[in-house]
Amino acid sequence: MIFEIAEIDVTEGQEEAFVAAVSEAAPHFKAAKGCHSLKLARSIEMPSRFRLIVGWETVDNHMVDFRESPGFSAWRALASPFFAAPPRVEHVAYTLEAF
Amino acid sequence: MIFEIAEIDVTEGQEEAFVAAVSEAAPHFKAAKGCHSLKLARSIEMPSRFRLIVGWETVDNHMVDFRESPGFSAWRALASPFFAAPPRVEHVAYTLEAF
Repeated sequence: MIFEIAEIDVTEGQEEAFVAAVSEAAPHFKAAKGCHSLKLARSIEMPSRFRLIVGWETVDNHMVDFRESPGFSAWRALASPFFAAPPRVEHVAYTLEAF
Repeated sequence: MIFEIAEIDVTEGQEEAFVAAVSEAAPHFKAAKGCHSLKLARSIEMPSRFRLIVGWETVDNHMVDFRESPGFSAWRALASPFFAAPPRVEHVAYTLEAF
């Protein structure tokens, strides 16, 4: 499993609406091929900055299968009105889980 | 619990040595007040970029208790020779764990 980390800066004052939109969009991720988990982390130093952390079986499950699916359009329709800037997307794999 | 996310760019070619250094430094984190977990994630798009993800009871357990302890000096002595730039450190809290 790999993880998508999407850093999303939300328009100030729209943070709670954004969290509600992510919650509403979660079933579209859950239904996606190879999608294992979805969490949303909020920055303590910059409270308008969120990280959407999505577990996928493969990078292609995210970048090809999901991005070309109606689920992606539905997610973006719900969440993108709150984006202050385009999300910065990266994929990571755990190389060490010490404890 | 909150999480420290330290984005660390490692000098090219030193990635495996850096992972070994983090593994060697892990007991210093484990012994620290309020430290719950330590994982290291590696970027797929930028393989010299790592994220050290550390679970702490509070931000102060990291920024005050740990940073002022000998464990922090020991961690930095082990890992900093491999840093290509100063780490970018942020703290996050999970606001949604959808599935």
